[in-house]
Amino acid sequence: MILVIKNDKKNQMDKLIKWIAGQGLDIHMSEGANTTVVGLIGDTSKIDIDLISSLEIVESVKRISEPYKKANRKFHPNDTVVSVAADRDSPQTGNAAAKKPVQIGGKAFTFIAGPCSVESRDQIVGIALAVKKSGASILRGGAFKPRTSPYAFQGLGEEGVKLLIEAKKESGLPIVTEIMNAGQLPLFQDVDIIQIGARNMQNFDLLKEVGRSKKPILLKRGLANTVEEWLMSAEYIMSKGNENVVLCERGIRTFEPLTRNTLDLSAIPLIKELTHLPVIADPSHASGLSRLVLPLSMAAAAAGSDGLMIEVHNDPTNALCDGAQSIRPEQFDEVARKVGAVLAAIGRERG
Amino acid sequence: MILVIKNDKKNQMDKLIKWIAGQGLDIHMSEGANTTVVGLIGDTSKIDIDLISSLEIVESVKRISEPYKKANRKFHPNDTVVSVAADRDSPQTGNAAAKKPVQIGGKAFTFIAGPCSVESRDQIVGIALAVKKSGASILRGGAFKPRTSPYAFQGLGEEGVKLLIEAKKESGLPIVTEIMNAGQLPLFQDVDIIQIGARNMQNFDLLKEVGRSKKPILLKRGLANTVEEWLMSAEYIMSKGNENVVLCERGIRTFEPLTRNTLDLSAIPLIKELTHLPVIADPSHASGLSRLVLPLSMAAAAAGSDGLMIEVHNDPTNALCDGAQSIRPEQFDEVARKVGAVLAAIGRERG
Amino acid sequence: MILVIKNDKKNQMDKLIKWIAGQGLDIHMSEGANTTVVGLIGDTSKIDIDLISSLEIVESVKRISEPYKKANRKFHPNDTVVSVAADRDSPQTGNAAAKKPVQIGGKAFTFIAGPCSVESRDQIVGIALAVKKSGASILRGGAFKPRTSPYAFQGLGEEGVKLLIEAKKESGLPIVTEIMNAGQLPLFQDVDIIQIGARNMQNFDLLKEVGRSKKPILLKRGLANTVEEWLMSAEYIMSKGNENVVLCERGIRTFEPLTRNTLDLSAIPLIKELTHLPVIADPSHASGLSRLVLPLSMAAAAAGSDGLMIEVHNDPTNALCDGAQSIRPEQFDEVARKVGAVLAAIGRERG
Amino acid sequence: MILVIKNDKKNQMDKLIKWIAGQGLDIHMSEGANTTVVGLIGDTSKIDIDLISSLEIVESVKRISEPYKKANRKFHPNDTVVSVAADRDSPQTGNAAAKKPVQIGGKAFTFIAGPCSVESRDQIVGIALAVKKSGASILRGGAFKPRTSPYAFQGLGEEGVKLLIEAKKESGLPIVTEIMNAGQLPLFQDVDIIQIGARNMQNFDLLKEVGRSKKPILLKRGLANTVEEWLMSAEYIMSKGNENVVLCERGIRTFEPLTRNTLDLSAIPLIKELTHLPVIADPSHASGLSRLVLPLSMAAAAAGSDGLMIEVHNDPTNALCDGAQSIRPEQFDEVARKVGAVLAAIGRERG
Repeated sequence: MILVIKNDKKNQMDKLIKWIAGQGLDIHMSEGANTTVVGLIGDTSKIDIDLISSLEIVESVKRISEPYKKANRKFHPNDTVVSVAADRDSPQTGNAAAKKPVQIGGKAFTFIAGPCSVESRDQIVGIALAVKKSGASILRGGAFKPRTSPYAFQGLGEEGVKLLIEAKKESGLPIVTEIMNAGQLPLFQDVDIIQIGARNMQNFDLLKEVGRSKKPILLKRGLANTVEEWLMSAEYIMSKGNENVVLCERGIRTFEPLTRNTLDLSAIPLIKELTHLPVIADPSHASGLSRLVLPLSMAAAAAGSDGLMIEVHNDPTNALCDGAQSIRPEQFDEVARKVGAVLAAIGRERG
Repeated sequence: MILVIKNDKKNQMDKLIKWIAGQGLDIHMSEGANTTVVGLIGDTSKIDIDLISSLEIVESVKRISEPYKKANRKFHPNDTVVSVAADRDSPQTGNAAAKKPVQIGGKAFTFIAGPCSVESRDQIVGIALAVKKSGASILRGGAFKPRTSPYAFQGLGEEGVKLLIEAKKESGLPIVTEIMNAGQLPLFQDVDIIQIGARNMQNFDLLKEVGRSKKPILLKRGLANTVEEWLMSAEYIMSKGNENVVLCERGIRTFEPLTRNTLDLSAIPLIKELTHLPVIADPSHASGLSRLVLPLSMAAAAAGSDGLMIEVHNDPTNALCDGAQSIRPEQFDEVARKVGAVLAAIGRERG
Repeated sequence: MILVIKNDKKNQMDKLIKWIAGQGLDIHMSEGANTTVVGLIGDTSKIDIDLISSLEIVESVKRISEPYKKANRKFHPNDTVVSVAADRDSPQTGNAAAKKPVQIGGKAFTFIAGPCSVESRDQIVGIALAVKKSGASILRGGAFKPRTSPYAFQGLGEEGVKLLIEAKKESGLPIVTEIMNAGQLPLFQDVDIIQIGARNMQNFDLLKEVGRSKKPILLKRGLANTVEEWLMSAEYIMSKGNENVVLCERGIRTFEPLTRNTLDLSAIPLIKELTHLPVIADPSHASGLSRLVLPLSMAAAAAGSDGLMIEVHNDPTNALCDGAQSIRPEQFDEVARKVGAVLAAIGRERG
Repeated sequence: MILVIKNDKKNQMDKLIKWIAGQGLDIHMSEGANTTVVGLIGDTSKIDIDLISSLEIVESVKRISEPYKKANRKFHPNDTVVSVAADRDSPQTGNAAAKKPVQIGGKAFTFIAGPCSVESRDQIVGIALAVKKSGASILRGGAFKPRTSPYAFQGLGEEGVKLLIEAKKESGLPIVTEIMNAGQLPLFQDVDIIQIGARNMQNFDLLKEVGRSKKPILLKRGLANTVEEWLMSAEYIMSKGNENVVLCERGIRTFEPLTRNTLDLSAIPLIKELTHLPVIADPSHASGLSRLVLPLSMAAAAAGSDGLMIEVHNDPTNALCDGAQSIRPEQFDEVARKVGAVLAAIGRERG
């Protein structure tokens, strides 16, 4: 960390120097014509950059080392591969090979697909079997739904989780669904991946709770959050002992009104550089337009994403929520095929 | 709600018309050369605008009436005045007049002040007495702190709440502090206003829980949230029975790096127009620069804010968190005085 | 265009109705419980949506048809292919086949490459020959440079244009370079494509001037401009008679600090839907990070871009400007090869 | 300027060190466990921060001193007061006192008012006399209009400038109007302040041209421009010899759809700190809503603005452009009165 000290306040530096030393850090000073630069050497991850900037004698502060550690590729150069160890004893998956855990990260590219909301047994089982056939290896489906309006459908809740578990049994696909508060954790015992939605990316208490679990966590990027803040939220989970974190880019809020959010694909290769955690993309929520799912899926794969999470619905017209983002199973099949061609071109395996 | 139907899909409209009728709405159609416009008449607040936009035959959708009702000034033209009925039997407040509840909204302008974090009994009581003397009528202080980093100070927690309650007793000032999950509610029994922080503005489960309480709720705007989404979050609280909601503008995220966030003062008069709920401003968090607190406080008052929430610390240099935003008691006194002059100029009382 | 009229102002509608009729438009009215909706039928492209919104009786306005016409795919369903008819009598290009014009749009995918700034004859000729070998069919290079600081290198100017023309002769590659004011047009006689930079996207007088030229125009998206505004700027050029417009997505400004701008790849398939004009992507300027050029180039190709504009420099360390974005010729060769593989996977030809 | 060097590239630093020395700068090095920090001491305003960041061995760069000099308050601590020396021999202004130049900056607060577009002699003279009576000391009016659509009214052009000059003669008010290209300069001989619009804030060639003039320049902030970029554009003008620059905050582009732009009032006190140039606010364009002009005007005055630029129209309904933003003369009178009360409260004179 580097502090730039105002020259006319240099004589007030003693207290600061003492405080820094009290934090167990070494100091390196460098005086210029108009400013004095103080370098803090040691573990500065606990230093509050806002506190430092607040000091009247400080003109500006620059962090040199990233504030995240467990998520930092510098200290963990190898890719983390998250194993989704679903119990896969299902009618559809009799052989041993199929019982291998699904992996996210590393060489494999993973398709996660399913409806915005779980609506009925027929719906979720039907979609599960359809997307599995097209190459999806994980089933998604919303049971607890974060909705902007209190009057909108809020999901089937516990009943939705049960239906997902049935679809898992029928299809052999592990399942991912969103948690909205820590009190719901007991209901997630048979859920394979717990999703933290964009709106809860900085719900730090919830992050701590799922960090105490051992289950893989799918952590969506918040609409207004920087890549660094996102990694700090992953760090929250990891700091409690759970290192099975999968990041999911799903668009950030910008001024462009034609898409719901702006999918930030630059974040994909950046994330691969900054962290060892796997990262996938969600083109459905990012754009809010089902006709952009195909091109954005191919683009995300080409940009180095470790997988895709795509909304698939058997009858978009009657979807109870977010139908705008959903494609039908036959369209998902086309997406999976065309993304597969891109993966082959860049030399990547399908998970 | 108005739907614009693509002309080449007009023949597929029957199913949609039936679905709309099934929602209990009337329909008004209007055919142009290239598009057909369908007007939905009736209570469209439960209609999912995303679902509608998703239909292949729909080119675009426009909501005509606001999706919030209880928060809507159209249906509640009079200003809501939130009464903060603190128990005010304190050494400092012997007389009956002082026991009147503090009010937010209406004619009064309310100063809320206090430290970012509660640190010790001396600190919080000292600040409480100081800001009260300068004109603050509510004490703020953080006990549970949402911090970007898991390694940063997370607040004193339950102990912090207790210290706040002691400061309340000593000063006679009602208190406001942030809740981070519904499980903390029992600890908030003697807290007068429950704050929902910016990062939890769309933590819908928490909104529902505090909606079941009767306590006044201070609802901060999320960093990436529109005014309409903010009012929808107020609606969540109100829909559960708690209409004591105070809105707090605290800056939105933009590309400008010199300030932490951009205080959106246009939102103040807009909010006064759209809703009957009171709205205050938080210049400390918005800018992240203590030297901008004075000009932004005066500006917020001039723009029609119902109050201010200002961070005050007795020794910013040693504040354990967010010290950058804090001003000292003597500076708060100047802010209160100068804002008072602006209030007098615009003909507004101080609460 | 649809106007929503406030119900309590309905009695003042006569003047408005008369004004609309005076614009040669038909009117369709529809009365609801709280609002009256007025539909304007006919050519509303000249109607000022801001003027209409300003009327006290109007609650809101929604445009139903796009305000651009010549750029609108609805009226020109076939892809526009822009022919870059460079004079190609060069030592390197003796045969007739090589004299075919380069095309942008349609089936072909076009690589444009070259340095940020033209610095010397050796530099620009050397890069031209290198990128041509790797598959670039157009040479870029800055002569007049828009720089944030008046103290930064502003480009070689007229001398830079001359050097570009020499590189064109040596390599047979048509050239593109940025114009900064209409007075420079005479210097652009031998330039094949005139570039309008992001900062000039709404320099309407310059758009009109290049619209009177017949040369292909490369129109970059402004940092804060919506897709619709971008198409309106294309419309400015086209409205003066020049329909040879190539759009170039180069990132928009967001809150994310790790990249200079956020490349908006969703805009690529959206643009292909809304307009018949070709669209390419510039990953170099978008991210400002040379190590992101490869993944973003592959992503842009996968998303349906008609080409790429990439900065290539023979010695980035000594580049006089924007070196951060530049890759070396051998890295460009890798980009071209890997993008080629993606193009093959999606069934697209290389131009 | 501080460079952070990657530790595994430290052995490649020699070339960089030599290059820095070649720029006439001194170097100060400081080695830590993971990084080496290089401080550049001397005049770094010509150093290209992007070039430096591009070097493979550089992890990050931080500028310590601002890149602007002539606009920098550090080197010019006293407020610049821009004198608008209108020729004021008009029927209405016979006495000597009235011939004093209007001043912007310093103690005075200046009202600039007038229509979006000049439409007719009667209109502009009528408004000039009305706003003068209410306290405006400068008349604004658009002759050349930057419009998003090529089909929208583009202003009366040269005829509009002539009508403005007539209104100046009639009213004695100096005039300000927008220039759109340097070729129009001869027409601006009798214009007192030349306005550079938001869309041309980084039209660097135009900035240089008006920098060669001696006339006061009103420089609007671009919709996507940071405060630092804005000051760099002021620096462009000043570097050519014209130090009469008045800055005008008019809103930045954010995700909030209810207002056209978000007025960034934090920028006002920041600007006063960073530069000695005067700064005013334009609440009309910022919000795009005439009913927000009053509260935002009062807020801007309270935040320390040196003046206001407000659109006033005698018949908003029939305004040919941007009528949405315009208030009528009687409303402007109220704005001037109420802003006057705020100015009195903060101890500021009216110009």
